[in-house]
Amino acid sequence: MREEASTQVRLAARPTGTPDARTWQLTQASPPTPGEGQVLVRNEYISVDPAMRGWIGATPTYTSPVEVGDVMRARAAGRVVASRDPSLPEGTSVVGFLGVQSHALARRDQVRVVDASAVPLIYQLSALGAPGMTAYFGLLEVGGCRPGETVVVSAAAGAVGQMVVQIALIMGCRVIGIAGGASKCDFVQRRLGATACIDYKADNVAAQMRAACPYGIDVYFDNVGGDILNDALAQIGLGARIVVCGAVSQYDNLGAVQGPGNYLNLLMQRASLRGMLVGDFEAKFPVAIAAMSRWMAQSRLDCQHHCVDGIENFPDALQQLFAGRNVGKVIVRVR
Amino acid sequence: MREEASTQVRLAARPTGTPDARTWQLTQASPPTPGEGQVLVRNEYISVDPAMRGWIGATPTYTSPVEVGDVMRARAAGRVVASRDPSLPEGTSVVGFLGVQSHALARRDQVRVVDASAVPLIYQLSALGAPGMTAYFGLLEVGGCRPGETVVVSAAAGAVGQMVVQIALIMGCRVIGIAGGASKCDFVQRRLGATACIDYKADNVAAQMRAACPYGIDVYFDNVGGDILNDALAQIGLGARIVVCGAVSQYDNLGAVQGPGNYLNLLMQRASLRGMLVGDFEAKFPVAIAAMSRWMAQSRLDCQHHCVDGIENFPDALQQLFAGRNVGKVIVRVR
Repeated sequence: MREEASTQVRLAARPTGTPDARTWQLTQASPPTPGEGQVLVRNEYISVDPAMRGWIGATPTYTSPVEVGDVMRARAAGRVVASRDPSLPEGTSVVGFLGVQSHALARRDQVRVVDASAVPLIYQLSALGAPGMTAYFGLLEVGGCRPGETVVVSAAAGAVGQMVVQIALIMGCRVIGIAGGASKCDFVQRRLGATACIDYKADNVAAQMRAACPYGIDVYFDNVGGDILNDALAQIGLGARIVVCGAVSQYDNLGAVQGPGNYLNLLMQRASLRGMLVGDFEAKFPVAIAAMSRWMAQSRLDCQHHCVDGIENFPDALQQLFAGRNVGKVIVRVR
Repeated sequence: MREEASTQVRLAARPTGTPDARTWQLTQASPPTPGEGQVLVRNEYISVDPAMRGWIGATPTYTSPVEVGDVMRARAAGRVVASRDPSLPEGTSVVGFLGVQSHALARRDQVRVVDASAVPLIYQLSALGAPGMTAYFGLLEVGGCRPGETVVVSAAAGAVGQMVVQIALIMGCRVIGIAGGASKCDFVQRRLGATACIDYKADNVAAQMRAACPYGIDVYFDNVGGDILNDALAQIGLGARIVVCGAVSQYDNLGAVQGPGNYLNLLMQRASLRGMLVGDFEAKFPVAIAAMSRWMAQSRLDCQHHCVDGIENFPDALQQLFAGRNVGKVIVRVR
């Protein structure tokens, strides 16, 4: 199979605020030729994630920053189009950190082989990928949610949030979503089936939380930080668990993050606030994937994708994500 | 035995800021006579606690507020001087919420009988009382500290802090205290034996923490909140546990508590922040008391008391506590 040209999105300059057009540089080249033990993967789907904001900052976080000039780091799913590893023949579907580019060289230990006949490949970046794993382990293991409990999820129409809502419902919880705008709230309540959804752009969040959680919040799954985290802290119940998964409201503001002034309620309610990174649970991913696949086969779990076509539109896709213009998981579909 | 007169400190008005003389009213009366099933206790020691600030606020916390006009709530230790309960004969030493007063009526289920021959009675309000129990369960159960770990304790010269430092040392931890002023730091390092003590009034706390905890903090036992909690969050290691025991820096400021902006490091370090109230562990107090008594008998554990004489000086004792003028547990000694 002959590949005509390859396209890459590279980090051109570290952004100070929100990443914009100047942050990125589009380059083209002939597709590389795999060396011994390598394969060439043609990416079909590229995952656009809030964590990318941290990866392009100057300070190392839980992983090293992307260097200026390098291809932007991203999870991607694609197929092997040239192989010099007999264990990964041409046509094999794989996922891994393959970057924001049309083609990637990879070795066996850099990719995970997936069965694209059972579930469409795009789900490997959503329900069966990092967002799904984050929701599963964050809610069930870090949050320890139990049937009947009240679970509150921020960014409930987002990639992780939509999975948390559905898994919590499957667990038999009362689930209150928080999202911005009527159409997202409609998605969360009607499509996902949440007990209620608070529109943080329209409602008084604190008052709505009080109304929706008369016995207090048992698990708060936080994707946003800021005022909403603080409002949730005011409404936690005895022994509540707050899962800190992200803080998308603060990512452009990392020098002066807003701390939750209501944290002392953790003391009153003997509650905890715990950070998580999904990579720590990698050894248990197969357990989660089996459960999630079963729920999908039973039509109890699905995943909404917000697709943007063309690698050259990755910068725009990322801006849509940070502006909250997506419903569901943002994916760049490679043409 | 005939008691001449009894003295009470009552809540005269809820303070808006720091409690002062106007907050309190001193009253005198004849000692009450116990009814059937009651005893009259003459208090010898009254515990002065940071939590009192919450008890006299208008908003219910984990317990109901003290009402204006009522005797101020306090833990106290004393002896039965008149009894109409055969299980509590005259001379029995007891502790309980007996109030800031010279004499208290109590029933059997309101006091705990203690052996004042083994350990001086005052220790029932410190090492073997709430501060000791808070330190034991906060450090060992909530904090889960393990030998060799780095433990950081704020208000290390205070009632709870001095116990945390000593228990952590007994556990084989590296222990870094934080305290205000050279004499407190001297007490923490020389008398208690801490590995190091940071003077938050003199040192750059963040820089000193970095220097003292090169591999990161494993357990941070927080009594103060504010900037010091935030500095500790910046220095936590992988899987760190932060125990929220109090926030003395914020108690005059409960309407606008300073939230820890560095809380997102919980995510990077997969760490947790958990609130505790010592009362939740009451069923296990005997285990802790046995361990602490053994350590005291072995001279591995002691407790410093900061005594103020006379019930009428309770308001001053409380002010000394909030101004941080005490080294060790603040106790009002009844004359």
